[in-house]
Order: sequence, then structure tokens, then C-alpha cells
Amino acid sequence: MANSKKISIAVIRRLPRYYRYLADLLRMDITRISSKELSQRMGITASQIRQDLNCFGGFGQQGYGYNVEVLYKEIGKILGVVNNRFHFIIIGAGNMGQALANYENFEKRGFQLVGIFDINPQLIGKKIRNVEIMHMDQLDEFVKNNKVDIAVLTVPYKNIPEVAEKVASLGIKGLWNFSAMDLKLPYDDIIIENVHLSDSLMVLGYRLKESQKKKKKKEGTNDSGNTNNESNTNN
Amino acid sequence: MANSKKISIAVIRRLPRYYRYLADLLRMDITRISSKELSQRMGITASQIRQDLNCFGGFGQQGYGYNVEVLYKEIGKILGVVNNRFHFIIIGAGNMGQALANYENFEKRGFQLVGIFDINPQLIGKKIRNVEIMHMDQLDEFVKNNKVDIAVLTVPYKNIPEVAEKVASLGIKGLWNFSAMDLKLPYDDIIIENVHLSDSLMVLGYRLKESQKKKKKKEGTNDSGNTNNESNTNN
Repeated sequence: MANSKKISIAVIRRLPRYYRYLADLLRMDITRISSKELSQRMGITASQIRQDLNCFGGFGQQGYGYNVEVLYKEIGKILGVVNNRFHFIIIGAGNMGQALANYENFEKRGFQLVGIFDINPQLIGKKIRNVEIMHMDQLDEFVKNNKVDIAVLTVPYKNIPEVAEKVASLGIKGLWNFSAMDLKLPYDDIIIENVHLSDSLMVLGYRLKESQKKKKKKEGTNDSGNTNNESNTNN
Repeated sequence: MANSKKISIAVIRRLPRYYRYLADLLRMDITRISSKELSQRMGITASQIRQDLNCFGGFGQQGYGYNVEVLYKEIGKILGVVNNRFHFIIIGAGNMGQALANYENFEKRGFQLVGIFDINPQLIGKKIRNVEIMHMDQLDEFVKNNKVDIAVLTVPYKNIPEVAEKVASLGIKGLWNFSAMDLKLPYDDIIIENVHLSDSLMVLGYRLKESQKKKKKKEGTNDSGNTNNESNTNN
């Protein structure tokens, strides 16, 4: 059904969000939903929703809307949540590394933590949810003997290039990079997702500023608030 | 120059990324850049870049391109990085809370950490980068006596609704929510940004899966790889 034509990365980036909302609907025993209702819940336009889901061959029926369970399963399939089980390791067992190791959510999404690595002797041997923290010296051996699809990089900024290069040389194809640096590597087949937490904070700051402006305007003589701020929209 | 018309949230969400790339260019002493060059660096189309920056009145000149410093400053102004200084507190001093408290990057973006709160007696009194962890009982008093614009919520999932309600009742207008729950509150003037880390991981998983498919196709008889995977694109 899906996936024979080129799908833009912008659409792909919205799919996890559809997936979450559909999971919520299922939990509430809602079995079908129109693009209009879904639009109101998600805060994006109904036409955007129809356009996005059309990329994958539709799933909707005129006058009926979407079958929530079918749509949920299909998007799960597209994202590889259902059929794939990715194994990941975390490199860097500081606060961020440990926080991520504790996210039970990742498992539900098809991602299984299989190892944690650090160089701090005080951390080696400690267990997080039954996964032991190993020394970086053991990384080569570990990757040789275990399936590892993804390395999560939560090491300090200055160490990122070296660690990324190391990981790539071991044949790990997916990098999830938390270093606030847009990592690039000279390999065609390495996939990198860079996480920039401060981007999200800056968007919050912008929306806050616009909201305050609007409020001041309303309190003043001119109350034609015309900014782009919507309460509670997200993403 | 900017900001008199409605700007879509999708454009706003791309601005922090432009801001980061322009900062990089400045560090490399690059003073001007064409939309084409910027496009190659950022992995988005030149026409998208022109369209985005047109929302704010342009800044570009035909045949010259963009003045990097001017553009950097303008985007900084729009995002409020230059003129605003937001004060934020972190609620929940577990691994994620402590990791965020240690992000020096936020300060450079105009966000200053002024307090950390938790209920764990073992954490109270501990300092992270000179900011003391206080007990939740002290929150009311603290917010009364200090300017607090944003609360970062890094408490466990089940406590989020209660903590969010509490924070909103104290008059804090910005919430940065790490609970993997799309938080909504019945207040018009509260701005919420929900962070869903697993969304990014799922996109990585998708791209990895597509890349493997493409590789298998190439290795097989049919080598017309036609998936949407680009190595090293991000965001």
C-alpha cells in the first residue's frame, strides 16, 4: 500500500506525531475519526492531514473518515515500529545518557537498549534497567558480537567527532546525536539525527514574547491582536 | 522590518536552525552567503530559504546574497534572543532535569536558569552550576519573589498534570514539557512546548530502514534506488 514513491522528510517527521495521537484515540476507545476532528485535536489543518496521509495511499474513506486502528497500524508499519526491532547503545552515561536509558517509551516504539558505554571508572559496572555500563575499551568487542543498529551519542561536545568516527568505523549505521552540533560524516550510508533541544526552547521563547505583545496590545488602545500566537499549539 | 503579518509556526520552527547555521558561518568569518550555498549547507531547498526569510521582509539582495551578520542579528531579534532574557526554573531534578541544568547553551540563547525544584530530600540543597535545588514547598514563595517566565517540567509522567496546574496557577506563562505527554491546559495565555524525544528516534529508525532497503535493492538485480533516504540530511 505504502511507500513506492518518494516521500518528503517533512511528512516523515510528522508521522510519529500522528502515531502518538492515534494511540491516544485507541486508549479512549475511539475507533474512527474524520480529518476535521483529528485536525482539531492536533492543531494542524485538515487539508494538511489529508495530504500527508495520501502520500501513503490514503487509508481514509469519504464520509466515514479514518479507521483509527488501521491507520495506527499502517503508520506503525511505515515507521518500522511493528516489523523492526532496532538495537541501540548509549555512549556517554552522564545525566543525559542515564535519562535516555531510563526511557521505557523507546522500547514500546521498537527500540531496545543493549549496552551503555563510558570512560568514567566510577560508572563502569553500574546497571540501568538491567543494562550494564561498560568501558569504551569494550566497545569493539561488543559490536563484533552483538547486533547494534544505533548509537546514541551523549558524550561531551568536544569528544563527539572522535566518538562518531569510531562508531562509524565499527559499522554502526544510525547515530542519534545529542551534542548540539550538527554532525556530518564522510560516509554515504550513515544516518544521523541531530537533536537540538535549544531549538524547541527558542520557539517557546518566541511564542511567549508574541503572547505578551498581544496581551499588551489588548490592554492598550489598539486591541486588534494579530500575531501568530495560538495557545497550546505545538509542533 | 519584521513581524507585522501572521507568520506560520512552521516557519518559526525553522528559525532556530537558521540561527545556528549563521552562527557557524560567523565563526568561520564568512560574511555573505547566497541562498544556494546556504541551501547546500543546510540540506533544504534554496526556494524554501528565500520563502522563509521573505516572511520577515527579506534581508537578501539580488546578486549579493545575504549579509550573514545582519541576518543573524535579525533572526536573533525575531526569536527574542537579543532583546529578551527569559528566566526559567526546572521542576524535577532527576537525570533529565540535571542534564538540562548543565546545558550552557541555553544561556547563550537568552535563557537563564534561576531555580531547580524537587521533592527528594537527598537532592535538596545540592547545587548545579551555582543554582540550588529547592523543595517544591518553596516554589510559591520563590515565584512570588522572582521573575520566572518558563518552567521546565522533568517530573515523572504521572505527576505532570498536577505540577503543570500548579505552575500555571502561580502565573508562569511558559511550560517546556519533557513528559512524552501532549500537555494541554485550560488557560488561553499559557504557552506549552512539548518535547517528544522518541519522535526523533522514530524518524532515525525510518531512515535507517529505508537506507537498508535501498542497499539491498542495489545489491540485488534491480538497482534503481528510489527511496527518500538521503545520507546526512537532518531536520
